[in-house]
Amino acid sequence: MSLLVTGTIGIDTVHAPTGSAEGVLGGSCAYFAAAASFHSPVRVVAAVGGDWPDDHRKVLEGFDNISLDGLEVRAGSRTFAWGGKYFANMNERETLFTELGVVEEPAPMVPEAYRDSEYVFLANTHPEVQLAFLDQLPDRKLAVADTMDLWINIARDELVMLLEQVDGLVLNDSEALQLTEVRNAVTAARKILEMGPTFVVVKKGEHGCVLAHESGVAVLPAFPAEAHHVIDPTGAGDSFAGGMMGHIAVAGRADLPTIQSALAWGTVTASFTLESFSLDRLASLKRADIDRRMAEFRGAARVG
Amino acid sequence: MSLLVTGTIGIDTVHAPTGSAEGVLGGSCAYFAAAASFHSPVRVVAAVGGDWPDDHRKVLEGFDNISLDGLEVRAGSRTFAWGGKYFANMNERETLFTELGVVEEPAPMVPEAYRDSEYVFLANTHPEVQLAFLDQLPDRKLAVADTMDLWINIARDELVMLLEQVDGLVLNDSEALQLTEVRNAVTAARKILEMGPTFVVVKKGEHGCVLAHESGVAVLPAFPAEAHHVIDPTGAGDSFAGGMMGHIAVAGRADLPTIQSALAWGTVTASFTLESFSLDRLASLKRADIDRRMAEFRGAARVG
Repeated sequence: MSLLVTGTIGIDTVHAPTGSAEGVLGGSCAYFAAAASFHSPVRVVAAVGGDWPDDHRKVLEGFDNISLDGLEVRAGSRTFAWGGKYFANMNERETLFTELGVVEEPAPMVPEAYRDSEYVFLANTHPEVQLAFLDQLPDRKLAVADTMDLWINIARDELVMLLEQVDGLVLNDSEALQLTEVRNAVTAARKILEMGPTFVVVKKGEHGCVLAHESGVAVLPAFPAEAHHVIDPTGAGDSFAGGMMGHIAVAGRADLPTIQSALAWGTVTASFTLESFSLDRLASLKRADIDRRMAEFRGAARVG
Repeated sequence: MSLLVTGTIGIDTVHAPTGSAEGVLGGSCAYFAAAASFHSPVRVVAAVGGDWPDDHRKVLEGFDNISLDGLEVRAGSRTFAWGGKYFANMNERETLFTELGVVEEPAPMVPEAYRDSEYVFLANTHPEVQLAFLDQLPDRKLAVADTMDLWINIARDELVMLLEQVDGLVLNDSEALQLTEVRNAVTAARKILEMGPTFVVVKKGEHGCVLAHESGVAVLPAFPAEAHHVIDPTGAGDSFAGGMMGHIAVAGRADLPTIQSALAWGTVTASFTLESFSLDRLASLKRADIDRRMAEFRGAARVG
């Protein structure tokens, strides 16, 4: 049930109608690991620069179940940094700046002690880098990748190769449309299934998600969050993936009913991420909070 | 458990990427009644002109459980006619023409034999007309209204009065935003709840629906229809309301769990409407088809 995640740890600056946060802990790997840690131990493979603030490390160390032995600190390099601004509806955002830093350098290596990892999540990066990680994980039972519009545009061939190697893909509805030229999320997900994976999750933000699995299709609404609870959507998608993969790793299988459960745990875990800037809400969260909200979600999303 | 619907019966012309249908049976009342009839007997109150095609009447008469004693045929008038065109994504449409006909004349009367109706659905029309219908239904136990952007714009005061008189409101997400100036569907629905009704359903099309009820909130995804099954979305919202109200009328109550079930029956019933132009698919449908798809939906939308 060992779970490993590769991705970015970033220094984020977020401006939203709800306020601003400057120079806070962010990145796909940070959100994923924090969310997954409530479900399963999780191993982080990422790189940061010499400028990485010590209090960011303390936040990650504050979570039970996160192992940072695969976190490379490169003294002469700079940490990945991202700035973004959300518009009034909190669903659209624009990127204000991106400083690639360590992301432009060779990817971090999977440490020897992590090479036996069975469950693997490859957060969004160049598909060639994602493929190279897979080569270092010979004992993997299940590998799931995330991707983004940039790679669909400039590295489609490598992405197609990656899809032949992974068991699952997680992507946004706009990315599913871009990859397949099919607007319908169900049909788009099924089309991606034909490219290799045994399951595909299309994330629709406030509208929930669609799953295409070799055994069937599933749909799930988002947790019904009220407007005043939505402080910062940054990292919600990565938290969703973390909750999902944490559940799959503990279950030790990826059949349709298990992934349906995993989507619900991912949804509920991510619903806390929205409630603060950075990982603030996740850092104060207890597993019992997730369980309580899961019971609430089961009631609210019950099919009569 | 007597269910009554007031609304339009129209002559529709629809152009879509999937084909065209000219001069076919349509209108909120027709779709609602057809959908509801699989769940409950339903009484229709509507008016048509002398030009109403006999084969449109035959379609409605072909459904078990639809009573047409409240259908006024006005020999010297013209039937409401609507033409629309769907764009490539099948989610947006433009109106090509609207010929109001009988809709500009005094509303039809509720016949004496229908005045004991307990469950009432007021399909979209001027809220003053909806209020006048309520005055003719003294025995009603539960009245639910639909509305549209036009009335929110030009008859907001009358709509506010209507909301104080009805038990439920059904509207689209864009209309909920327009009425409340709140983009979040959960918060918007809760805000409308404060205006009078005991429940509010926000329809989000392919993304399902959100329910705010005095006892709590619920969410439901849409049935996961594949792209090639979506032929014509016209009437899907009215069919959803028909399936929902048919279930409520038979259940004889409107507590939160009953309405959650009703939303699922509405969702499943409407998923057939999409599969053809006009009421073609509903006209060939059997209750067993709905039950089978409900079982499929329960599996696909299961919260793990």
